[in-house]
Amino acid sequence: MSHTAELIAVGTELLLGNIANTDAQMLSQGLSALGINVYYHTVVGDNPQRLRAAVELAKSRADILITTGGLGPTCDDLTKNVLAECFGKKLVFHAPSARRIEAYFERLHAGRPMTENNYQQAMLPEGCTVLDNDWGTAPGVAFEADGVRVIMLPGPPRECRAMFTHRVIPYLKSLADGVIVSRTLKLFGIGESSMEAQLREEMEAMTNPTLAPYAKEGECELRITAKAADEESARALIAPVEERLRARFGPLIYGADVPSLEAAVFQLLKEKGLTLGCAESCTGGLIAKRMTDLSGVSAVFRGGVVSYATEVKHTVLGVEQALLDEFGAVSEPVARAMAEGARRVLGCDLAVASTGVAGPDPDERGNPVGLVYLALAAPDGTWVRKIQQGLGRERVRHVSASHGFDLARRYLSGLEVK
Amino acid sequence: MSHTAELIAVGTELLLGNIANTDAQMLSQGLSALGINVYYHTVVGDNPQRLRAAVELAKSRADILITTGGLGPTCDDLTKNVLAECFGKKLVFHAPSARRIEAYFERLHAGRPMTENNYQQAMLPEGCTVLDNDWGTAPGVAFEADGVRVIMLPGPPRECRAMFTHRVIPYLKSLADGVIVSRTLKLFGIGESSMEAQLREEMEAMTNPTLAPYAKEGECELRITAKAADEESARALIAPVEERLRARFGPLIYGADVPSLEAAVFQLLKEKGLTLGCAESCTGGLIAKRMTDLSGVSAVFRGGVVSYATEVKHTVLGVEQALLDEFGAVSEPVARAMAEGARRVLGCDLAVASTGVAGPDPDERGNPVGLVYLALAAPDGTWVRKIQQGLGRERVRHVSASHGFDLARRYLSGLEVK
Repeated sequence: MSHTAELIAVGTELLLGNIANTDAQMLSQGLSALGINVYYHTVVGDNPQRLRAAVELAKSRADILITTGGLGPTCDDLTKNVLAECFGKKLVFHAPSARRIEAYFERLHAGRPMTENNYQQAMLPEGCTVLDNDWGTAPGVAFEADGVRVIMLPGPPRECRAMFTHRVIPYLKSLADGVIVSRTLKLFGIGESSMEAQLREEMEAMTNPTLAPYAKEGECELRITAKAADEESARALIAPVEERLRARFGPLIYGADVPSLEAAVFQLLKEKGLTLGCAESCTGGLIAKRMTDLSGVSAVFRGGVVSYATEVKHTVLGVEQALLDEFGAVSEPVARAMAEGARRVLGCDLAVASTGVAGPDPDERGNPVGLVYLALAAPDGTWVRKIQQGLGRERVRHVSASHGFDLARRYLSGLEVK
Repeated sequence: MSHTAELIAVGTELLLGNIANTDAQMLSQGLSALGINVYYHTVVGDNPQRLRAAVELAKSRADILITTGGLGPTCDDLTKNVLAECFGKKLVFHAPSARRIEAYFERLHAGRPMTENNYQQAMLPEGCTVLDNDWGTAPGVAFEADGVRVIMLPGPPRECRAMFTHRVIPYLKSLADGVIVSRTLKLFGIGESSMEAQLREEMEAMTNPTLAPYAKEGECELRITAKAADEESARALIAPVEERLRARFGPLIYGADVPSLEAAVFQLLKEKGLTLGCAESCTGGLIAKRMTDLSGVSAVFRGGVVSYATEVKHTVLGVEQALLDEFGAVSEPVARAMAEGARRVLGCDLAVASTGVAGPDPDERGNPVGLVYLALAAPDGTWVRKIQQGLGRERVRHVSASHGFDLARRYLSGLEVK
């Protein structure tokens, strides 16, 4: 049997635009992975009448209703009160929850007395399943009434995500018919429109598995999604599609179900037992930052030099002054010398370098915004890639760093570096 | 007269959780700044029946309806068709829009022929105001019918934001009664709960202006919002509140309406004619990255050394091996030596250094996750701040970098550095 869920987020801060409704995104991803359809998201403010209207409507068209927010003392536990009323439930005092809230409060605000408001959080709909909240004070709630499964979760994204993962998914899994499995191929070096054009007919003809393209921050993804009775059958549906895509896009695919290019580079460095360093001008620390976002990377990442001022390229990285004078900081020879300098100075096996014009203005030699040279220095040679992008500063920097990782990825995978 | 707007986002990708509804956040912020109330956000998929239901409901309770998405050829121009139907409008061919789409297409895909689908985008409700789209192909639309002002915008956030800013705001401004002006004080070094506790009574007693606290990424904000007939009167309401808050929080306030701590540091460096550099261990390039996110920063930012491997602290930054051996990389003396080394190596006036344990595991000397030393070296001394946070890796790194900026901010503002 197929289920339909509807999401209602409660919070005036959402209607004022102070925050985006990322809870809805997180829940939608999770529900979709469970094979549960979501047809509507609604956002209402801290207002009982409008929440009631949204709940009555949702009740009439979904069999799973998930609310986020409105459980805290600052909004008078709005969501619990309204939902209990809409489904004809009384709120009753739940002693174990009160004790959990006390304990949480004690851990966080040692010495500060708990207020009456906090005890209100332990008033829960009679007969409900309490979803213990180990990440905040407001307990979550689940109950079934009038043919609808109602789930109330706290609004703060960190709490909402943890509660969904650890409390709601196990509960919902028992309802889902079959499983939905996705596998995402990640590509670098191809535009979304070109990828889509090559795949359009194939995608349109597919029903199970389906194939969906996404573009983000200069990369492309191809998500293959299969629905089947169990995971193994779903994976068997995915495999031949993945094979076809790999045959078509080959070296442009840098991984499957990997979080990022830098994570792919990290994995390859570990496999080969090699170390990496970097020398950054226009990316200004972003390459190092993205590497060190990955935990455990100290095993392979030595460090970097952010040579933002031209002088630092000479004094710290040892780029010859003559090169800087003749070609300027944004040039192929300087990119090369920066990468080679970083290898020497940092004592690493491979070094990636960037030099370019992030914008918003051209450099003093008239190099245009978006012109960037990336270099990779390795024991057996140095390679330079020149790119020219017509994007904003942040995008230029991000995509440039990705090109740097792509050079390393190609080298480490034994592909042609270019 | 007070207006009520309602937002409907159209797109199955939202219901699948592929993207968050950031358009709604952006529009809500903008509408709130115009004094227009928003009571509901709704998200529906690419489905005419469900969109129709959402539109009929919105029609019944709002006098401004803004839709985002569903204007592209891939969804058969769903939004335009359904809205035209709900409001009894015919779609007619709009030749100037067709020419704009042709021109846009030519610029982007020189040589590729435009498809029939693209011409569909030039079919617009009869008698509507066309909102020219200079950022994509789908034109926006505005019309008034049945007492409701209907505005349709493209979904891609970049297009939606530009269209709202340049096309919709001027149109809506003529409807707004009075203006709403906000001023945001930014604080670093105080917890949200402590700030809220100090201000709770005051905030609750205020009606115009209002005062709202926000916490994000280790910082706090206090937004003062006033509604008045014109901007000057609104600012006059804000000024005394700001004065009171400055008297109370003093050196914890690093700026008003400034985007970030690093932007405040950038501004102060420019004012004093000083340069900055950094030496980063646990922040791994994030300090340099955040500085170089700011355009024009090359005037004051020299660069940095990411000394992720302990050896690099010695070889590049000149931290004495004896210090590293005796105290370990995560220590007060090493933080100090890193900052002083960065000043020397990079030739900058001030240098910020970080060394600590970002996690997920304690370091080999047993220093706990979240222990970080930040140092600031200046011509007249070096200061070290020790912090201990109980947060995840990403948060530890971000907050650590902020503490580094805060040291520089305090020094440059003539405050006590501590």
